[in-house]
Amino acid sequence: MFDKLHEECGIFGIYSQTKGSDVAAQTYMALYALQHRGQESCGIAVCDDGVIHYHRDLGLVPDVFDKETLDKVGMGNMAIGHVRYSTTGQKSRSNAQPLVVRHIKGAMALAHNGNLTNAMELREGLEMNGAIFHSTNDTEVISYMITKARITCGSIEEAVCKAMYEIQGAYSLVIMSPSKLIAARDPHGFRPLCMGELDGDYVFASESCALDSIGARFIRDLDPGEIVVVDKKGVRSITEHCTGPGHFCVFEFIYFARPDSVISGASVHTARMRAGSFLALEHPVQADVVIGVPDSGLDAALGFSRQSGIPYGVGFNKNRYIGRTFIQPTQRERERSVRIKLNVVDATVRDKRVVLIDDSIVRGTTTGRIVNLLREAGAKEVHVRISAPPFLHPCYFGTDIDSRDKLIANKMSIEEIGAHMGADSIGFLSVDNVTKIAEGAKCGFCIGCFSGEYPVEEPKKVQKNKFEVKISENLETAD
Amino acid sequence: MFDKLHEECGIFGIYSQTKGSDVAAQTYMALYALQHRGQESCGIAVCDDGVIHYHRDLGLVPDVFDKETLDKVGMGNMAIGHVRYSTTGQKSRSNAQPLVVRHIKGAMALAHNGNLTNAMELREGLEMNGAIFHSTNDTEVISYMITKARITCGSIEEAVCKAMYEIQGAYSLVIMSPSKLIAARDPHGFRPLCMGELDGDYVFASESCALDSIGARFIRDLDPGEIVVVDKKGVRSITEHCTGPGHFCVFEFIYFARPDSVISGASVHTARMRAGSFLALEHPVQADVVIGVPDSGLDAALGFSRQSGIPYGVGFNKNRYIGRTFIQPTQRERERSVRIKLNVVDATVRDKRVVLIDDSIVRGTTTGRIVNLLREAGAKEVHVRISAPPFLHPCYFGTDIDSRDKLIANKMSIEEIGAHMGADSIGFLSVDNVTKIAEGAKCGFCIGCFSGEYPVEEPKKVQKNKFEVKISENLETAD
Amino acid sequence: MFDKLHEECGIFGIYSQTKGSDVAAQTYMALYALQHRGQESCGIAVCDDGVIHYHRDLGLVPDVFDKETLDKVGMGNMAIGHVRYSTTGQKSRSNAQPLVVRHIKGAMALAHNGNLTNAMELREGLEMNGAIFHSTNDTEVISYMITKARITCGSIEEAVCKAMYEIQGAYSLVIMSPSKLIAARDPHGFRPLCMGELDGDYVFASESCALDSIGARFIRDLDPGEIVVVDKKGVRSITEHCTGPGHFCVFEFIYFARPDSVISGASVHTARMRAGSFLALEHPVQADVVIGVPDSGLDAALGFSRQSGIPYGVGFNKNRYIGRTFIQPTQRERERSVRIKLNVVDATVRDKRVVLIDDSIVRGTTTGRIVNLLREAGAKEVHVRISAPPFLHPCYFGTDIDSRDKLIANKMSIEEIGAHMGADSIGFLSVDNVTKIAEGAKCGFCIGCFSGEYPVEEPKKVQKNKFEVKISENLETAD
Amino acid sequence: MFDKLHEECGIFGIYSQTKGSDVAAQTYMALYALQHRGQESCGIAVCDDGVIHYHRDLGLVPDVFDKETLDKVGMGNMAIGHVRYSTTGQKSRSNAQPLVVRHIKGAMALAHNGNLTNAMELREGLEMNGAIFHSTNDTEVISYMITKARITCGSIEEAVCKAMYEIQGAYSLVIMSPSKLIAARDPHGFRPLCMGELDGDYVFASESCALDSIGARFIRDLDPGEIVVVDKKGVRSITEHCTGPGHFCVFEFIYFARPDSVISGASVHTARMRAGSFLALEHPVQADVVIGVPDSGLDAALGFSRQSGIPYGVGFNKNRYIGRTFIQPTQRERERSVRIKLNVVDATVRDKRVVLIDDSIVRGTTTGRIVNLLREAGAKEVHVRISAPPFLHPCYFGTDIDSRDKLIANKMSIEEIGAHMGADSIGFLSVDNVTKIAEGAKCGFCIGCFSGEYPVEEPKKVQKNKFEVKISENLETAD
Repeated sequence: MFDKLHEECGIFGIYSQTKGSDVAAQTYMALYALQHRGQESCGIAVCDDGVIHYHRDLGLVPDVFDKETLDKVGMGNMAIGHVRYSTTGQKSRSNAQPLVVRHIKGAMALAHNGNLTNAMELREGLEMNGAIFHSTNDTEVISYMITKARITCGSIEEAVCKAMYEIQGAYSLVIMSPSKLIAARDPHGFRPLCMGELDGDYVFASESCALDSIGARFIRDLDPGEIVVVDKKGVRSITEHCTGPGHFCVFEFIYFARPDSVISGASVHTARMRAGSFLALEHPVQADVVIGVPDSGLDAALGFSRQSGIPYGVGFNKNRYIGRTFIQPTQRERERSVRIKLNVVDATVRDKRVVLIDDSIVRGTTTGRIVNLLREAGAKEVHVRISAPPFLHPCYFGTDIDSRDKLIANKMSIEEIGAHMGADSIGFLSVDNVTKIAEGAKCGFCIGCFSGEYPVEEPKKVQKNKFEVKISENLETAD
Repeated sequence: MFDKLHEECGIFGIYSQTKGSDVAAQTYMALYALQHRGQESCGIAVCDDGVIHYHRDLGLVPDVFDKETLDKVGMGNMAIGHVRYSTTGQKSRSNAQPLVVRHIKGAMALAHNGNLTNAMELREGLEMNGAIFHSTNDTEVISYMITKARITCGSIEEAVCKAMYEIQGAYSLVIMSPSKLIAARDPHGFRPLCMGELDGDYVFASESCALDSIGARFIRDLDPGEIVVVDKKGVRSITEHCTGPGHFCVFEFIYFARPDSVISGASVHTARMRAGSFLALEHPVQADVVIGVPDSGLDAALGFSRQSGIPYGVGFNKNRYIGRTFIQPTQRERERSVRIKLNVVDATVRDKRVVLIDDSIVRGTTTGRIVNLLREAGAKEVHVRISAPPFLHPCYFGTDIDSRDKLIANKMSIEEIGAHMGADSIGFLSVDNVTKIAEGAKCGFCIGCFSGEYPVEEPKKVQKNKFEVKISENLETAD
Repeated sequence: MFDKLHEECGIFGIYSQTKGSDVAAQTYMALYALQHRGQESCGIAVCDDGVIHYHRDLGLVPDVFDKETLDKVGMGNMAIGHVRYSTTGQKSRSNAQPLVVRHIKGAMALAHNGNLTNAMELREGLEMNGAIFHSTNDTEVISYMITKARITCGSIEEAVCKAMYEIQGAYSLVIMSPSKLIAARDPHGFRPLCMGELDGDYVFASESCALDSIGARFIRDLDPGEIVVVDKKGVRSITEHCTGPGHFCVFEFIYFARPDSVISGASVHTARMRAGSFLALEHPVQADVVIGVPDSGLDAALGFSRQSGIPYGVGFNKNRYIGRTFIQPTQRERERSVRIKLNVVDATVRDKRVVLIDDSIVRGTTTGRIVNLLREAGAKEVHVRISAPPFLHPCYFGTDIDSRDKLIANKMSIEEIGAHMGADSIGFLSVDNVTKIAEGAKCGFCIGCFSGEYPVEEPKKVQKNKFEVKISENLETAD
Repeated sequence: MFDKLHEECGIFGIYSQTKGSDVAAQTYMALYALQHRGQESCGIAVCDDGVIHYHRDLGLVPDVFDKETLDKVGMGNMAIGHVRYSTTGQKSRSNAQPLVVRHIKGAMALAHNGNLTNAMELREGLEMNGAIFHSTNDTEVISYMITKARITCGSIEEAVCKAMYEIQGAYSLVIMSPSKLIAARDPHGFRPLCMGELDGDYVFASESCALDSIGARFIRDLDPGEIVVVDKKGVRSITEHCTGPGHFCVFEFIYFARPDSVISGASVHTARMRAGSFLALEHPVQADVVIGVPDSGLDAALGFSRQSGIPYGVGFNKNRYIGRTFIQPTQRERERSVRIKLNVVDATVRDKRVVLIDDSIVRGTTTGRIVNLLREAGAKEVHVRISAPPFLHPCYFGTDIDSRDKLIANKMSIEEIGAHMGADSIGFLSVDNVTKIAEGAKCGFCIGCFSGEYPVEEPKKVQKNKFEVKISENLETAD
């Protein structure tokens, strides 16, 4: 709704030792818990005694799944699920996941979170050998790489392991063969993936909140590079690609993940509060109340309040009913749209010096409008504090910061940004402190979008229609 | 979603001096802001040069209105809108409002919030004279009473004024004739209704948050008993039924109204914080953190925290995607449904003594489950504090407490309720303090549901199928 | 789809001696058989032990009713159903039937086919006494008249009988009270209504084809003016308004009714073949093949062929998939739209002298286009024969010929019509013969639309917004 | 609706020399004309300056395409379209066409009618080289074969030509590359494909009726084995695979094709009348009236009537509103379902000796019920005549006779079939005469389903899940 970065996916998988289990229902509920990671499309694939049934479509979980569609995918002993965010206005059903394909050894279903950095090169190589592609997403490339490896490998997990030498970039995967459930995380561990247990069944999910939602017990995060295989013989791990603590996307802690999730041993909620504390130390200000932009700024606002001693207040009411279908009939309404979504609680801010906490600024337009709303409601001063450093560089690992041009921090100095927004002062979290927010986390971090230093080589070829949903190549013009 | 009382309606009206205005768009946006007052059905009626067009249906505002249906109701110089909550599982399109009828003097559209206490008697009297009813709601009774009065009155406003001598109970009304917009509030002022101004146009709404959402300036609340008429000659007030400060439903301050609304000069948010403060004074406890049940318990939790000095914490993540269409596929899932909607932020409560604030308890089942979730997440102690007195009596004035039997406070002592929930202690706001929460409010209060003392006579006849959506009388059996 | 007159309704009713019968399913199937009489909206009301449940909406039977909605209306011992055609582009859910109302003696559901000639006067009289109207259809007027009578009558059937002294014009009715099913036909018998028996249950339907569709045995047509009452005591007839053979709409035989129906003892199919025979005698021509415009011209074409000895041929393929949702994207397509719906079978007409039979001409545009298609397909001559006389006068009794202006026969001579269409010759059935087509029919006929002589007085006041679906009076402007 | 064989597809393509043409609208209208060839799913792909946009889904053309979806595929200079029938109860969106893929040289869209006989072998070969499949239809196999050939061929048409040496069986194809439209027909010409011209643009369609529907001029049928290429340089033909008159599916003339189509120079309508004439000669009978089962038996009935001199009559009214969504609520209704769809016109058959013409018998159940209806309506005798020989053998070329077991003619003698149906006599068209019905047709015929003699080798491997829509292999179990 607002001017935010977007994660691209959430994934889930479950393996039950009991045939005919209601694994689809578990997946359905888990996808609700992961919905914040992707709202464009979703899908569930169930494996029942070697046969895979699936349903996927554009829309939120409640749009795509009802009693009828859940019954259609049916009972089974394994299931995987996926929620996907589209980073462009265009939406395509053909990009919905899980991807279900048939290859030389049978059927395979995949759900994927992340972005490959060498997808374009791999794709061209495959096409040179006669491959055809139905979609533009990396998941189809991964399927081909596993399929190719499978021809010479003795098992699906070996094929996954072999393919991982060739695919580069960010990926967390759940893969379902007729008899196995496989979860894998790239050697840098950019995207989260954890493992749990539910009445003896194994489950995998992008975030621990999905385990909570189905009552599963959290076991541990997968290590960067780890492959976990579950089948009737039990669970085992392949650690051939495990090389170190990895580079986990710090923005998962700042914004993407749900506050009630725990990642690498650190609570997301606590990390956000700590980000607020650091902010209060780095950019102190005299003020009467600290408020956060709902929902993602609230935790940091509470942290700022506790550190600074300035009282925490409820500054806004967020309208929970405004969704994707909201119509803005006229220009007059368009300008007022922030107000419709977010109304100031006047009593909190009138005649007060206000500290306003938001978690990040991409283009800056929304924050400016919010500052203006606070002024109209009688705030005497508005001090903007951002619980992340400024975005300066693109992300190649599964979020939608794909262009330097749109980032306000590349066009203005920090002071100019504050002035542009009409703030009395502005302060961003420092790059130094951002990696310290997840206290106790047992992982390294990727902070490429802030620092420009990436843990892996930047892609040589960026697929020019990376997010194009229509098939739109015109290479054929030569013939 | 949870075990809450329900308001029955929200209303809105706009009169523009300019023909062909986009009054439907304003109404559409205002209904979004009032959606919390009713989620079953909604509708908009537009008057364009004396001709009334309308659309209404079951569903939320985004379900019922899209570009096509908004275009269908079209442009005009007046509009009224309505959101409705159904107090039973049954839903009926025939009860959706605005009600649009044709009578001897032309067309009339009505939107109504409240419940009459003598609807049944009026209805029987009308039927004795040949009236037929298409629905079971009070609005149709009100239409008949105004129509009957209109035969002998010189104007629609006189007819409304005359009808108000006969209809008893709670009602806030907006009425649209071909040339006038009329807003009226019952002499007790049970339900809110305020007035604002937008670029020279007059608007009326159940709550001030709806004025904010369209950028209108708040003028004032209507007085209890007041009738306001707007037509091309301007605005005027009929105060014949105004007799005093009235008896405003205190539960609007506690739960129904949006926290960013201001009613009778008092901020709803501030009132809720004060309720929390009173609670801290009435029922103090040694604890490490105060958390509220989202969303309605958060304000009182903050008030409790400020008064008691116990830190405020974020105890839960509420899943914003779980809606009416959520399927609970199996019994196992049903039991877990609270967890799916509300997940505990472990870091906030683990090894802590927790004060849990909720705004009211009807049946008590949900609160008990929430206490249990906190225990599972490691809370050492859970002290439940409720920012309203116990419900002991039915409400006849527009909410759905219609039976003493379902109210837990009629079955158990307060201590028993606490034990039943597994709480370490429990405390309710006192009846004495409940009327003091809205500091500075210029109105009297109805606290009938807590005290059993009602400002008007209890209904003699309760329509037995009051909330039945099917027409279901079998009086004809005699013939 | 084509340029045709439209019937306004079809009705059905069933009374079962067994409680909890699947009367809704019977009604559902019967409405399919009556769908040709009305495609705008439909509905079913079921009475289960005195309680009436109903569902109605815009759309065809398969659009409005599915498993869920049929289950919703549920089981019972009586049901009535209705299909409705809208005579304007505007459609309104509020005009859908059955109409279900509650009055002094309980609930009542009505389904109605026809048009009153004094609806406006009755309506004004009711409004003078405080009545309010939710719709613009005559059914609501009839409900009020019965309700008014019911106050002083001892039973619902007496009230119906009394009301019939006041309502004038065309009506076939089925009425359901909590304990009785009543069927009634106006004293002129303009619209059809017959009675049948199914496993001991009584059923009523606009046409006998609906009885066939559910496997019911045809008993007889209701007499003009007859009231039939079914209740637990059995079936009885009130003949107080029965005065003679009546004036049945002859156009039911020519076009409205389904060819497999039998009305007043005459087969509709046979009547259409006879119309073709008469045409062959009245307007003989030398030709090679006789073809009919599908579907309604086919029977008369066969009759013409048999009488004339000219071979019958299949001249067209009608596209069964083109429905209401067909989009004509551009003007070029619009002009071709007849071709999309109706393609000539070239082999039948190439180099042939063709007799083209259609059942009526309203505006004449479509027939002209069809003549042109035949020429393009190589027909040497095209002789148009119409199995009805020219429309010259409005119909006040339930069809949509409401204006002389649109009727081509009021603007041109018959020869001019033929020339306008590009036909080599043209011939219409004579007014003398039109009443003879239903050989053996035991009824008189209304031929007002052809002759201008009506069996009842023409309406003094025509409701100006008779077909307006929006409420659109602006009488209020005086106050 | 009834017990009929089903064609599997209809295809269409258009190439315009004008960029930005409304080729989607033309395709939309043409698909309406081809809807009888496939009702499960449909789709349109448009090429606009080298970029391909498409939309496809389950449902009829009016279900899948509305203003919004047509606008979405947009304007362009080429388009192809497809309608598909599912031969099983299962439906899958993933089998909808056109198939749009990206390969080494760019994008490609294909629409296909027919069935390959070596699909399974080709598929296995491709999988051995790492291919992955998203669907189970032959079109994906064809795409791979063309893609593979394209790597070494200089142009897309050369690749198509090369691939045609490897794919065996029945196929009519339209293929769209970024710059070319290619139409191709298998060397046996099993399935129809013709070519036309519309205002200088070239169009291709399964049947000529689709050309008529958009006002295009028929040019000629493609020869068996012919490839036609259209690009900006004009139109050209590749005849390398053209080897003779081919083996056209005779059942296209008997049932599949629309009667107003002309195939190989012969009118389908005339062929059906001739089939009726042959039947009258082969199986003469004394009778009073000849009636056909609508719609497909009507032409043959007219031919039988003309040959025999027995009058042609209209025996049935077919309910045009019964569609896929018809609910048969109870068993009682299920048994009556034929009656709901097809009601006898009693006047035509009462006390008559009736000849009943149908075009084919698969399982025989429906015909038996129809005979019974005629008896109930008073027919004295019922003589069944079938305008095709008995089905005895499976079809491998694009229809759904896939099992000998379900064919009644494999279980009973002809006399037994007649007795089973309750007919007084029965007669089938002879295999000798079936190839003579299309008088003047310039093609050879496949009559494999009647004779068991096929023009090409029967498939060695029949894909076991040929029509399975779910991916359902469990070959992986070894690993």
